[in-house]
Amino acid sequence: MKGRTEVNEHTPAPEAVRRVACIGAGVIGGGWVAHFLARGYQVIAWDPAEGFEDKLRRLIDAAWPALTELGLAEGASTDNLVIAATLEEAVADAEFVQESAPEDLALKQDLLARIDAATPAGVVVSSSTSGYGMTEMQRDCPTPQRLVVGHPFNPPYLIPLVEVVGGERTEQWAVEWASRFFEVAGKSVITMDREVPGFIANRLQEAIWREALHMVANGEATPAQIDASITEGPGLRWPLLGPCLTFHLAGGEGGMAHMLDHFGPSLKSPWTRLEAPELTDELRDAMVKGCEEASDGRSIADLVADRDRAVIAVMRAIDGVRKGRS
Amino acid sequence: MKGRTEVNEHTPAPEAVRRVACIGAGVIGGGWVAHFLARGYQVIAWDPAEGFEDKLRRLIDAAWPALTELGLAEGASTDNLVIAATLEEAVADAEFVQESAPEDLALKQDLLARIDAATPAGVVVSSSTSGYGMTEMQRDCPTPQRLVVGHPFNPPYLIPLVEVVGGERTEQWAVEWASRFFEVAGKSVITMDREVPGFIANRLQEAIWREALHMVANGEATPAQIDASITEGPGLRWPLLGPCLTFHLAGGEGGMAHMLDHFGPSLKSPWTRLEAPELTDELRDAMVKGCEEASDGRSIADLVADRDRAVIAVMRAIDGVRKGRS
Repeated sequence: MKGRTEVNEHTPAPEAVRRVACIGAGVIGGGWVAHFLARGYQVIAWDPAEGFEDKLRRLIDAAWPALTELGLAEGASTDNLVIAATLEEAVADAEFVQESAPEDLALKQDLLARIDAATPAGVVVSSSTSGYGMTEMQRDCPTPQRLVVGHPFNPPYLIPLVEVVGGERTEQWAVEWASRFFEVAGKSVITMDREVPGFIANRLQEAIWREALHMVANGEATPAQIDASITEGPGLRWPLLGPCLTFHLAGGEGGMAHMLDHFGPSLKSPWTRLEAPELTDELRDAMVKGCEEASDGRSIADLVADRDRAVIAVMRAIDGVRKGRS
Repeated sequence: MKGRTEVNEHTPAPEAVRRVACIGAGVIGGGWVAHFLARGYQVIAWDPAEGFEDKLRRLIDAAWPALTELGLAEGASTDNLVIAATLEEAVADAEFVQESAPEDLALKQDLLARIDAATPAGVVVSSSTSGYGMTEMQRDCPTPQRLVVGHPFNPPYLIPLVEVVGGERTEQWAVEWASRFFEVAGKSVITMDREVPGFIANRLQEAIWREALHMVANGEATPAQIDASITEGPGLRWPLLGPCLTFHLAGGEGGMAHMLDHFGPSLKSPWTRLEAPELTDELRDAMVKGCEEASDGRSIADLVADRDRAVIAVMRAIDGVRKGRS
């Protein structure tokens, strides 16, 4: 069976997966374990660290009340965790494998090659990497066709987003299978057509982070001021409206088209150290059309009404958390 | 009285202000009017646009149910709105003035000079500008000492943040008075020590926005993918934890110090088009110390527990809004 790379009779339907292997059980890998257990899967975990089981069980125990409150899948139980003695044992019967090793390219190349060699053919292997492209990570794999990136956000048992993208030698069926599987497993999936360093969300996060570091380095703001500027400001809109729809609303009734046509020149203002792109007609039209699509047929007035309700609901939710602090 | 620039017997205590003038009544100015009315102030509004009153009243009426739900101050009523026939009439008896004209430097310079000339001495005048520095805006003002920037976020009646900063000719008492007044008026205030183009939150927002535009321009992601990467991912953490404390938690038990010492080199990864600053010892220490301050004595475990509760609460709040869509 090994060496077969295409989807085959041994490839389970994404909906039929019952056994998931998690290789690497630190903060991210352990978070994946907690997530899959809560969704009712059997999880086989392995980590090279001596005595990792205790730490992993503490992480799961800490997450379980929240997961219970959110609603466990039928049959979900922390008893469905199996600790494997070796990597090969962990993946031998797996129907899906999630790798969450430290961010070290050589380490990931070795590890993924070992995982690939030991995992039944037709089973998709996914990496939690937050930065490396699959093309470079899959270099030494015997059957690289079924390897994908499935990049989660911390903590993986709560934040829905997973970015899925293949490498140059990944086949399209594996990308599609992984996207569908993550959806079935309760995640929000963005399937990317091409490899971009840092994927999408981390590029955006990094842009903020670098600007924040520049401000601290120059004595322009403190970390506390930077954080407050987000938590008391734009951060209250971002759970409902991303940066594109946020600026779509900033254009008033004219939406993104008005925004770009009237405020486009201010793109060049020295407001941040990231250089602005040229606002070509193509970019303008892509943004306008993209915001129409992202609006899903909802008018600006609808979006504004939703935003206001969301901001109120989010502020109340956060107030509750702050007041309930131990 | 005019021409006196220092705080004087005509300067009300920030807590004693009852009459606020709002100059400019578009989306931002109108949002301020709604906010001040809800906090129980009498508001005198003026806008050069013919028949602005109708539009302003519609904006207030649309916001009022949300403001009522959030809780109105004693005596708050939409009847406390007074429409002025001229700018001079609007500010003649004001105890505080908020200017929200379009972002046009020459226009703001003229308008602020007129406002300054007509407003009683000792009364603070604040501008909603999202980009200009007060130093350039106050150029033609007879008594520039009492002019400050009070930059809100849309909608000003819901988003708490106001960034307060003076210009070169602003006196410190005016900055302090405005900061205290906005707090009394129910806002979350960041008082900046120096002028930085774009202040704090807009610089961070712009960094995201420019990276997003680059991604669309290069065909790396669509606006819908960009927005989903935030709303389903980091955006769920930002209402509680800003970018600094978010990365403080990414360092595990070692916090920001561990984060910078171990992941510092990845700052140079080509994850975004904004160039990273040099991670000097000074910057490292400023970030570590700043995160300790921003943590307010709370351990990483406390912060993690709060984050998880906040993410759940925010997701539920947003779910409710999405399900309740008309």
